[in-house]
Amino acid sequence: MAVPPIDGVLETALYVRDLDRSVAFFAETLGRPLLMRNARMAALDAGRRSVLLLFVAGGSADDMATPGGIIPGHDGSGRLHMAFAIAAVDYDPWQCHLTEQGIAITSEVRWPGGGRSLYFTDPDGHVLELATPGLWPVY
Amino acid sequence: MAVPPIDGVLETALYVRDLDRSVAFFAETLGRPLLMRNARMAALDAGRRSVLLLFVAGGSADDMATPGGIIPGHDGSGRLHMAFAIAAVDYDPWQCHLTEQGIAITSEVRWPGGGRSLYFTDPDGHVLELATPGLWPVY
Repeated sequence: MAVPPIDGVLETALYVRDLDRSVAFFAETLGRPLLMRNARMAALDAGRRSVLLLFVAGGSADDMATPGGIIPGHDGSGRLHMAFAIAAVDYDPWQCHLTEQGIAITSEVRWPGGGRSLYFTDPDGHVLELATPGLWPVY
Repeated sequence: MAVPPIDGVLETALYVRDLDRSVAFFAETLGRPLLMRNARMAALDAGRRSVLLLFVAGGSADDMATPGGIIPGHDGSGRLHMAFAIAAVDYDPWQCHLTEQGIAITSEVRWPGGGRSLYFTDPDGHVLELATPGLWPVY
């Protein structure tokens, strides 16, 4: 049988020490609309119907029963990496915005295909990237 | 200044112990086209111009110089979580496909909004999810 289709990354997850601090960072500083929030986690709209999940480190390791079924446990540590897509025209505005917010731009990369990336870190040291088209054959 | 727009999750990253094994799992078993591969990492097309990155655990912790700039180091451990979007019509085919491939479905969840999720694990125990629309307000 052929492998059924996959229609994109829907969710990526980061594990954070202080959920209030991280929600403030992603919702206010980075402008991502908050979709839900409880003591264990938060979900933010990352654009194009994709979702950034923030879990309290150590708080999601156990399976969790819900009325609709069991959500398997997971947990992570370290400085994880994820990237958001931005339009090329938004590169300079993002650079200004991060600087205005006091967020250090740790690096900038120009890719062979013409895309550009801004790197910075979230409050837990996760390595975040804002990347314009021209980075991957599919982007 | 208003926060500039973000246009979706572009990349999510997993850290793996055996890159050959993980590339075989995602490229062959899950049918994701391989975009690039080197000794340190692999990138796979996750659909809708999003990309799944696989890094050899411990191999990406240092900054890496490239002609276009420095790629900051990152690394992670634990059983991370990410979700792929699938169409509702592909839920049953995915369930069959995973079973045929000998991949245990660890859980199924029905969400209040009508979406459904299949959970299973990759060779490193990362918690993967295939989710149909009706899970989030934006999906």
